[in-house]
Amino acid sequence: MDLNSDLGESLGAWRMGDDDAMLGIVSSANVACGFHAGDAAGILRTLRAAARQGVTVGAHVAYPDLAGFGRRNMDVASADLVADVIYQIGALKGLAAVAGTTVRYVKPHGALYNTIAHDERQARDVIEAIRAIDASLYLVGLAGSPLLDWAQESGLRTVAEAFADRAYTPNGTLVSRREKGAVLHDANEVAARMLRLATEGVVTAIDGSTVRIEADSICVHGDSPGAVEMAREVRALLERSGVRVQSFVDAPVAQAHS
Amino acid sequence: MDLNSDLGESLGAWRMGDDDAMLGIVSSANVACGFHAGDAAGILRTLRAAARQGVTVGAHVAYPDLAGFGRRNMDVASADLVADVIYQIGALKGLAAVAGTTVRYVKPHGALYNTIAHDERQARDVIEAIRAIDASLYLVGLAGSPLLDWAQESGLRTVAEAFADRAYTPNGTLVSRREKGAVLHDANEVAARMLRLATEGVVTAIDGSTVRIEADSICVHGDSPGAVEMAREVRALLERSGVRVQSFVDAPVAQAHS
Amino acid sequence: MDLNSDLGESLGAWRMGDDDAMLGIVSSANVACGFHAGDAAGILRTLRAAARQGVTVGAHVAYPDLAGFGRRNMDVASADLVADVIYQIGALKGLAAVAGTTVRYVKPHGALYNTIAHDERQARDVIEAIRAIDASLYLVGLAGSPLLDWAQESGLRTVAEAFADRAYTPNGTLVSRREKGAVLHDANEVAARMLRLATEGVVTAIDGSTVRIEADSICVHGDSPGAVEMAREVRALLERSGVRVQSFVDAPVAQAHS
Amino acid sequence: MDLNSDLGESLGAWRMGDDDAMLGIVSSANVACGFHAGDAAGILRTLRAAARQGVTVGAHVAYPDLAGFGRRNMDVASADLVADVIYQIGALKGLAAVAGTTVRYVKPHGALYNTIAHDERQARDVIEAIRAIDASLYLVGLAGSPLLDWAQESGLRTVAEAFADRAYTPNGTLVSRREKGAVLHDANEVAARMLRLATEGVVTAIDGSTVRIEADSICVHGDSPGAVEMAREVRALLERSGVRVQSFVDAPVAQAHS
Repeated sequence: MDLNSDLGESLGAWRMGDDDAMLGIVSSANVACGFHAGDAAGILRTLRAAARQGVTVGAHVAYPDLAGFGRRNMDVASADLVADVIYQIGALKGLAAVAGTTVRYVKPHGALYNTIAHDERQARDVIEAIRAIDASLYLVGLAGSPLLDWAQESGLRTVAEAFADRAYTPNGTLVSRREKGAVLHDANEVAARMLRLATEGVVTAIDGSTVRIEADSICVHGDSPGAVEMAREVRALLERSGVRVQSFVDAPVAQAHS
Repeated sequence: MDLNSDLGESLGAWRMGDDDAMLGIVSSANVACGFHAGDAAGILRTLRAAARQGVTVGAHVAYPDLAGFGRRNMDVASADLVADVIYQIGALKGLAAVAGTTVRYVKPHGALYNTIAHDERQARDVIEAIRAIDASLYLVGLAGSPLLDWAQESGLRTVAEAFADRAYTPNGTLVSRREKGAVLHDANEVAARMLRLATEGVVTAIDGSTVRIEADSICVHGDSPGAVEMAREVRALLERSGVRVQSFVDAPVAQAHS
Repeated sequence: MDLNSDLGESLGAWRMGDDDAMLGIVSSANVACGFHAGDAAGILRTLRAAARQGVTVGAHVAYPDLAGFGRRNMDVASADLVADVIYQIGALKGLAAVAGTTVRYVKPHGALYNTIAHDERQARDVIEAIRAIDASLYLVGLAGSPLLDWAQESGLRTVAEAFADRAYTPNGTLVSRREKGAVLHDANEVAARMLRLATEGVVTAIDGSTVRIEADSICVHGDSPGAVEMAREVRALLERSGVRVQSFVDAPVAQAHS
Repeated sequence: MDLNSDLGESLGAWRMGDDDAMLGIVSSANVACGFHAGDAAGILRTLRAAARQGVTVGAHVAYPDLAGFGRRNMDVASADLVADVIYQIGALKGLAAVAGTTVRYVKPHGALYNTIAHDERQARDVIEAIRAIDASLYLVGLAGSPLLDWAQESGLRTVAEAFADRAYTPNGTLVSRREKGAVLHDANEVAARMLRLATEGVVTAIDGSTVRIEADSICVHGDSPGAVEMAREVRALLERSGVRVQSFVDAPVAQAHS
């Protein structure tokens, strides 16, 4: 099972997250590309640390919205979205090469992530951008979303993602953050859920039912000391239980969502 | 002799220059990278047009200053300058690959260009960035400036540049734009000067003396109809006179400044 | 009848529109506030020219999106939208005071304009912002839209706006730009339509029917020589026909949409 | 004696400083205006908190450089610098009015602060901007710098500022941050120094000599828990020693640097 986290999100004088701590926990680092967060020097530092720790690097591409941290839906035209995604991947590839590592996957960020899970037009723009610059890149997307099907049809390798600290509906979709109970705070409970996800392919939904989630990667957060601790607990429990934590690019069998 | 021009400098709804016209005139296109000008979609369009026309592509890297068009000196720390230059080159490389072409050189823009011609700290930062991402890239810089020496010492191939529409001092430096007569406006005179530069390696300085300028490339502008016309006249006179206009990357002999 | 146009939309080295020409034609200037267009020095120049020519000034507030020229829908949270609108109006008030004039109205730009015509949440955010900073400001919005009702309920004075170069549906809404015939190009036809609008309160809809449009202001454009000419023709025909072109703030009778 | 601190410097998802804590310590709040830091909604929150706590508000104007946090020298042309400063003050005035307070002074930030302490061209641009938008605003600048003389000559009221945690040369200038011992870390020592400054008008210079510093305001920082504690200690010692901490705008006698 892969563990991924959003890194490189500091900006100039503003710090965010504890990249060094998280790089000791995760197997994949979604590195900001400057559109929602990240300045080039800080991104380079994070890439160098990822290279040192052997953590796989992905491009965390986003809408151009620093003030909104890429969390606001934007109706970006296809020509712009395609080119913006290529630009971001290219910039990260350049920095990664200098840091002694390689960009292996793309995980869209924030509002772009949520939008393309279901919006076919923008999804196909992102897919087109990835295929145009490097068709060997994996695309990380929401487990169970049509995005993964569209990407596979186009020939991209995909990685289905689950969220460690989020509640699921009986249909396998995420409970909206606006609803009560959407975000889980107990590290032990979260770790236990993720162990079950990794070993049985199911989680307990918010109504108590059991729901199937086929995931290749689990997203954990590092933006607070509590979040880092939860991530550490998820990894520790997985490993104690015999689940190997490793990047999907290193997985011995086909990890594409099927 | 190479002819180069600054292209891809539109930004969203704002147009600048006539890239299509200029791509029919120059052999090298300095393409904006988004820091002083250029949005990704527009840059991609320019790169595709350059690829179609067989024009060599370079990265026109700059300080991060859209409002000032990269023309304002900025005291950027080394860690930031190095990473910013890598980021820009990487982004352009990504877009160029999609457009079916390749970034072959770097030409710093505006205030960065002028600063690194003489400021060793920032010059070495830019050189380090280029070498780190792709040591095969040429660096285009001011003819006669110490930058070219520093770059060559570090192993980079350099291209010495002259400016078609600028007056020179008897020492071979540019007459400051703040002085009278610094910018030339007569297309025929400019073309004749550039022919002499290309064939004899000299220009007439502002005081009437003859000054040696060893240049591998001539910068022409395309930001007004008159500028496009002047550029066309320069190329036409060179060709009528038997000087082949071609990119330095295609030149049969070593084009490094010696 | 008031004529308004979008001005102050240059940005640094990028020019847009012919502000001087348009200030000789319109009675109201929607001046960019830096979020979709406009840098402070350019805005100040436009405000000084407006003051000299006696043209009424309004704040052309927008989403924070230079790359998209404010034309992309953005899902901005209420706390941000309210504060962003206050910030923009405040900045323009400061520059206007220095230029010897006063901001008298607010006209949202682009995607924000279209969104708040019908989206009640964002509409009420903009209304709240205007009332908070200066309840004496007029709000210019789409004729016939619920925005004007919401604004009046809240106590704001409103100005209903028609578009000179746009086709209307039989229901009095604008024909989408994506449909054929949405934008009119014949200056004489446009001027004749606006004369009829001003004198009879109707226009001919795209299906040939007659539709009532109660408008206090007509928007004309200045972003191309043809647009300037069309605006000039609209004003000339109105004046030849006895319709006085003057800002709504100077109108002798209540100009609020009723 | 006035105590001032830089506030409102968060940006979107990025937090900086503990504004609530500092507003309980200082008498004057230098509030970011969006050019080096601060988004409108966050600025508005800080202004509302300042209004609640009765802390005087100033505009912390800066170069347009979010990535560099306004700490990089920029060679901004006069027309731009004047307009940028007016824009920022205007924006803050608008937000302050909504928050129920008033902008009473201007304190330039970072590189702009350091530059105009001695660079007459940029200093006069800032002075012109302040006088143009509101000649009743105080200008806070480096104690002993020619800026204060230029401002007073032009009719502005000035406030001479000392830095609590910085070492001084025997000439009364700040020891450069690049030198050892430039920044003081012991809260008790700093408080004792500021008490002596407030009561005797002197500090001990880095070489042990005594140097006269005539200051009307002391800058304290709030960007770390240790900084907040130091600021609290400075205020506590001043008050225990009978020095009243109050804004210069409330001071009973002329507070202009003489």
